[in-house]
Amino acid sequence: MTRNDLFQLIKKRKSYLSVGLDTDINRIPEHLKRYRDPIYQFNKRIIDATRDLCVAYKPNLAFYEAMGPKGMESFAKTVEYIGDSHFIIADAKRGDIGNTSRLYAKAFFETYNVDSVTIAPYMGVDSVSPFLEFEGKWVILLALTSNKGSRDFQFMKENGEQLFEKVLKVSKGWGSAENLMYVVGATHPEMFLTIRKHVPDHFLLVPGIGAQGGDLQAVSRNGMNDKCGLLVNSSRGIIYAGNGKDFAKKAKVATKKLQSEMEVLLEEKFS
Amino acid sequence: MTRNDLFQLIKKRKSYLSVGLDTDINRIPEHLKRYRDPIYQFNKRIIDATRDLCVAYKPNLAFYEAMGPKGMESFAKTVEYIGDSHFIIADAKRGDIGNTSRLYAKAFFETYNVDSVTIAPYMGVDSVSPFLEFEGKWVILLALTSNKGSRDFQFMKENGEQLFEKVLKVSKGWGSAENLMYVVGATHPEMFLTIRKHVPDHFLLVPGIGAQGGDLQAVSRNGMNDKCGLLVNSSRGIIYAGNGKDFAKKAKVATKKLQSEMEVLLEEKFS
Repeated sequence: MTRNDLFQLIKKRKSYLSVGLDTDINRIPEHLKRYRDPIYQFNKRIIDATRDLCVAYKPNLAFYEAMGPKGMESFAKTVEYIGDSHFIIADAKRGDIGNTSRLYAKAFFETYNVDSVTIAPYMGVDSVSPFLEFEGKWVILLALTSNKGSRDFQFMKENGEQLFEKVLKVSKGWGSAENLMYVVGATHPEMFLTIRKHVPDHFLLVPGIGAQGGDLQAVSRNGMNDKCGLLVNSSRGIIYAGNGKDFAKKAKVATKKLQSEMEVLLEEKFS
Repeated sequence: MTRNDLFQLIKKRKSYLSVGLDTDINRIPEHLKRYRDPIYQFNKRIIDATRDLCVAYKPNLAFYEAMGPKGMESFAKTVEYIGDSHFIIADAKRGDIGNTSRLYAKAFFETYNVDSVTIAPYMGVDSVSPFLEFEGKWVILLALTSNKGSRDFQFMKENGEQLFEKVLKVSKGWGSAENLMYVVGATHPEMFLTIRKHVPDHFLLVPGIGAQGGDLQAVSRNGMNDKCGLLVNSSRGIIYAGNGKDFAKKAKVATKKLQSEMEVLLEEKFS
């Protein structure tokens, strides 16, 4: 999917929502547990309920790996079920030396065939560049994360420049706005202006609204660019909106609420 | 395994070698490919050949993930085959927000039952601390990596202190020398003295000798502490020492060579 394809999809669906599939076997409704693969059955119903209201799905690999090899089968089946109507983000936060990153890239882009993978920047260029060699695939590099621990190292300052800024400045030369996005947490809405100075054109993947307390309005007003440039993710706020037999319906209501807010924000910007 | 258990094992085997199981289906001998699980069959033979000469095995998850769900089965079987006679390192370089790191911790420490996991520090305290809550298990945090890209961010300097030093200083308060180790690449042998100022007692996992060009002598002389404090890893130099039917024999020769050097270095230090 190109950057323009993604923008067209956003305009068509009136949404820049990514639904996070952080599917935890301990939190899914009881009635699904009689299936052979409850994780996949849960995801399938969430996807059916939310498909028209979002542009991306973001399965977090931790939740699948925690289930052992069969969890990776649930992941593979989920990716296949989503198909090519959505931008698929493997939220894996990988990063290793060159020859190893090449294998991770192969795992995600060939074995599982997702559109993008989240990558941690700590190990530098050779940990990231193997992912950028795949035509039509994307790297989503951690810049400023949404969690409390983001304060430990990401704001470290050298000659007035913070680590997350250095990550943006150095890494944007490794790829382009056509194959590189950045993770910027919604819990730092004031930082989107600083970030847009460094990367005006790149898409930003924004976790942290909902359960983590980020503000969609502030993020959107500070972070949107002329191709929208935002994918805002909600995971727990959607997939665990309910936990009974009507969980998918409740997920749809929660998704619709976010999509409606996004529709207004898109109209403000593009009409 | 406690820090003292590990030191006793090192003294008994006269070795502080970790064998990296970066098993690539494209590099293993042809004759193994007739088996249902060639990756596991390869590992089994490498383990049989090297067991008495090393104290740790380090499977790198990328190589298993690249094979899809069945790769994770090869990983699980390999871990089981190694058993509890060795310290097992899942080289996964994970790190995510708290609730997600908890799942990764569960995946590695419960589902797969390894002794330790490598973790990337970029996301800070809540990405690491869930791993430190498991009794008898270890976090191995990236400090200064062996690859070229380590120069991109890890040497960033704030008030005279480099990022990898800040990682050591801040993170050592999250755990102790009994559940926290650090990755320090053998390609920076001069930095071991600096690192030992910050973490005199912690074990260091040292990749980068062999294929990456690090120097075992320099690393050992600069990095060893009074409980040895080093696990030096070799992957490709051992497991791909040969590629014919005698590959395991050749792996054993390469391992024996490293173990013999280590035996001398241990004698120098502890006799």
